Amino acid sequence: MKILRINMSDLTYREEEVPADKLLLGGRALTSRIIKEEVPATCHPLGPNNKLVLSNGVLTASMASSAERTSLGGKSPLTGGIKESNAGGTAGLKMGRLGLRAIIFEGIRDDFYTVYIDKDGVRFEKADDLLGKRVSESAQLIYEKYGKNVGLYMIGVSGERKMNTAAMANADKDGSPTRFCGRGGLGAVAGAKGIKAIVFNDEGVEKNRPKNPDVYKEALKQYSLSLRENPGTGKLFPELGTAAMVRSTNKLGALPTRNFSTGSFEHYKSISGETLREIILERGGEGTPTHNCMPGCAIRCSNIYPDKDGKAVTSPIEYENIGLLGSNLGIGDMDQIVELNRLCNELAVDTIETGAAIGVAMEAGLLEFGDFEGARQLLLDLEADKPMGRIIGGGAELVGKIYGVRKVPVVKGQAMPAYDPRSIKGLGVTFATSPQGADHTAGQTVRAQVDHHSPEGQVKISQKSQVVNTIYDNLGLCYFAAGAVGPNLDMLARLITGYIGVEVTADDIKNMAKQTLKDEHEFNRMAGFTKAHDRLPEHFYEEENPASGTVFDVDQEEMEAIGVEGNHAG
Amino acid sequence: MKILRINMSDLTYREEEVPADKLLLGGRALTSRIIKEEVPATCHPLGPNNKLVLSNGVLTASMASSAERTSLGGKSPLTGGIKESNAGGTAGLKMGRLGLRAIIFEGIRDDFYTVYIDKDGVRFEKADDLLGKRVSESAQLIYEKYGKNVGLYMIGVSGERKMNTAAMANADKDGSPTRFCGRGGLGAVAGAKGIKAIVFNDEGVEKNRPKNPDVYKEALKQYSLSLRENPGTGKLFPELGTAAMVRSTNKLGALPTRNFSTGSFEHYKSISGETLREIILERGGEGTPTHNCMPGCAIRCSNIYPDKDGKAVTSPIEYENIGLLGSNLGIGDMDQIVELNRLCNELAVDTIETGAAIGVAMEAGLLEFGDFEGARQLLLDLEADKPMGRIIGGGAELVGKIYGVRKVPVVKGQAMPAYDPRSIKGLGVTFATSPQGADHTAGQTVRAQVDHHSPEGQVKISQKSQVVNTIYDNLGLCYFAAGAVGPNLDMLARLITGYIGVEVTADDIKNMAKQTLKDEHEFNRMAGFTKAHDRLPEHFYEEENPASGTVFDVDQEEMEAIGVEGNHAG
Repeated sequence: MKILRINMSDLTYREEEVPADKLLLGGRALTSRIIKEEVPATCHPLGPNNKLVLSNGVLTASMASSAERTSLGGKSPLTGGIKESNAGGTAGLKMGRLGLRAIIFEGIRDDFYTVYIDKDGVRFEKADDLLGKRVSESAQLIYEKYGKNVGLYMIGVSGERKMNTAAMANADKDGSPTRFCGRGGLGAVAGAKGIKAIVFNDEGVEKNRPKNPDVYKEALKQYSLSLRENPGTGKLFPELGTAAMVRSTNKLGALPTRNFSTGSFEHYKSISGETLREIILERGGEGTPTHNCMPGCAIRCSNIYPDKDGKAVTSPIEYENIGLLGSNLGIGDMDQIVELNRLCNELAVDTIETGAAIGVAMEAGLLEFGDFEGARQLLLDLEADKPMGRIIGGGAELVGKIYGVRKVPVVKGQAMPAYDPRSIKGLGVTFATSPQGADHTAGQTVRAQVDHHSPEGQVKISQKSQVVNTIYDNLGLCYFAAGAVGPNLDMLARLITGYIGVEVTADDIKNMAKQTLKDEHEFNRMAGFTKAHDRLPEHFYEEENPASGTVFDVDQEEMEAIGVEGNHAG
Repeated sequence: MKILRINMSDLTYREEEVPADKLLLGGRALTSRIIKEEVPATCHPLGPNNKLVLSNGVLTASMASSAERTSLGGKSPLTGGIKESNAGGTAGLKMGRLGLRAIIFEGIRDDFYTVYIDKDGVRFEKADDLLGKRVSESAQLIYEKYGKNVGLYMIGVSGERKMNTAAMANADKDGSPTRFCGRGGLGAVAGAKGIKAIVFNDEGVEKNRPKNPDVYKEALKQYSLSLRENPGTGKLFPELGTAAMVRSTNKLGALPTRNFSTGSFEHYKSISGETLREIILERGGEGTPTHNCMPGCAIRCSNIYPDKDGKAVTSPIEYENIGLLGSNLGIGDMDQIVELNRLCNELAVDTIETGAAIGVAMEAGLLEFGDFEGARQLLLDLEADKPMGRIIGGGAELVGKIYGVRKVPVVKGQAMPAYDPRSIKGLGVTFATSPQGADHTAGQTVRAQVDHHSPEGQVKISQKSQVVNTIYDNLGLCYFAAGAVGPNLDMLARLITGYIGVEVTADDIKNMAKQTLKDEHEFNRMAGFTKAHDRLPEHFYEEENPASGTVFDVDQEEMEAIGVEGNHAG
């Protein structure tokens, strides 16, 4: 496995062996380590000293289910801190087959290139023909030029314009570019570096084989069985996708509604996972309630949403998007949510950040809650590069600053995903203390069997979840496998041992995750973060969520102990 | 002397005696102390926990020249740190005559009031009729209602909309509301509190008299003589105003030109102080090259700029505005600069921040450098509340974030005044380390007799200047008096001793200033500032200013020693 280092300023590259101290590092562990070691923490995110790192996990391309998530890392223009955002899709697999653990992009430039990578090396090709288009159109042009079987990462108009909401897209197994490293504006970092697309062609490369096939096969069998037999990964996710959560969060008073002003939505039934499945099944055609984003993924939480004529609209419709583009905007119509979701995908903007940004615009009175046409127009303004579109493209915090709104659901500049932290307080702790800013995948606590309304014990739960989530981010594994794998990580340790032929223990995996969190907090400290940033916005402490009757009241000092100035003892 | 505490949430007020520990505190010393003691550092600047403090210096209303500057303080929505901004004009005098050392505004509300203060107390009157208008129109309505002789502080449409560039205006001795507490967006804090205007009516109050008339008179005589005999305050400022500096900064390569891309401007002659004086004298009419903003000010650095028919356009045309709205935008026509200045005044936006914001918009390619009509239209967009106007009204940093521009001349979110820090490095140190963000009045070093291009010794010079500037801010004295007063502060100590009847020494005055800086840094530390924030934007270290041939290269550790994590030993 190699690390490919590409300088976009002069369009040169070189390959490096993965150094001994990074042999086990992959995914978030590797992006964060490289950023910490190589990027000056005070640099400008869009300047020449920031780097963009794309990394696979150690299990990517190993044939294990759900193991092809690629991590994208850099200093975030949205948060000003370290950022890792990962996505499924097929790019990781192709990149892995090309023998690449990671790619480090350096330098900046004003024009745009496609970075084409195959077994013979790297080619840089002017990407003028791909600019200014919707993501699906640009992807089509890439397929026409480089063939249907390439893997790709690409930015949309948002990234070309270096917007804070800009994501990087890659394609699912059907070639649809709807898998996003969405959070933190890393698409803008790619844009600043002149990277319009990264194309992976793995033609002619040999299949990766486990170094210790017997150990690997045995572990893989056990892992696959766990995924099948677990009620979440074996039945609930394939049936309802992540949208299964709408009902439960609504009941908890945690479903963000009208800019997080309350936590339950009168139209929650019409945007629930059950309704989503019904609509998809009823309309049929190209739609499907069960769909895997990565080849061979057994969990298949994705779906394809069809229009009334059965034609595919977009994929996947997930809980976060229903929450942020639906209830958070007072929109209770599934077709409308899907249309906003589709537009976000086409512009390659983070759906969470964009939904929150539109919510703040509604709070400011620019449009009414529930105004689907108005929300859609904002996205079209973004596409047309109108000033209002630029404002929305800047994300929720900037909308708040531009319009003088104080109720803005962000931490460290990043919008909260679809959980009111007053009603699921463990997630509130994660939002407040994660080096990533408000992020549910940084320490998901919603499935913990606790009273989510109580402040007690939430710091411990979040801390544990932050380590568990980091483990999966580091391995390139989908976090949804965690329920099936359970707390005993021996199965994963055997899988890795068998695949890379180096003895790895469960403790190694855990310690790597803790070290990743330490690396990230250290970068953030050097970038200027203190415990003053490990907090929720003021109004969550002072104004009750009417649906849960709670404010956020987790002990601040206890939280700080696991934050940027804490000791992070897991 | 009393402190008036006003709660805008429920429109109540109470008077408090100035407590013993704050007897000598005034101006910036008092606003910063109160903010540090009473405002939670992590609060939202536009939320209920921020406070807005207006304070006089101890010498205000004493009849000493240039001593009526009022300080406005609060947590800044622009920087996120502590903020003090002061202005001349007549409001301080009226407020002082009413026996008020300071006013503390608390709470928030959505509608707007005029806070009317006279010898009988405080009245709150709905200000709907004043909203949405230009500052000169609203002032006219206030004079019609409350009489020509009132003092006033007011916000413009920018403050009503809680923009980061929003200033508070007060009137000069002719009633023209063109004196601004400009920096840091405190007009937005006033707006969040529902304060449209503060009106002071000092009718029927007795004249303040020195407690020890003999000491006072003797010191006042000496002070007035110094002002007259000093070449700066006695001749240069009255003749050319602050615009006298255009020639010298241009020569140093420090005149910000085209978004600080270089430090000399090919049209500098047509925007110099000499040209300004010539135009004013030639046109005559209501224009005057010499004008005092405070009654009885001997320095008279202000001016009134007339149009071709001799009708007054606006006042004053100052160096900073010529730099930021002129050369920084590539505009070399005095009438055009004055028109932009006038519009900024009418909207009550900070001219420095707004000029820098338009400069960044030009850098982004939204309009060409030199495009006066385009710049004017941006201000009209701001007035008309169009999205583009909101973006400009957000200040330079937000324009940069919205348009993905990395060369943004700000520190701690606040735009640099008209000195390229690569060419006057002492000011670079001030910009980097002042708790106020980039601010020349926080530690002006341009008059130091040193090689401004050299990094050597600049930290010491800045540190000293930061203390000296704070001394004048604390006393409500115009900093321009500093040259005449000189390093020996005994004259000021005697003046204060005579006026308040309490023995004050030069050391007391110096120590109070050092303590003010400590207070401010402490607030900022609690608000989340670290040494990572005590820096200039990255490109000033890496890209040469072609006019001076220098980059900013002052030793970072040496700078940090006087910044937020330093020990501030003066």
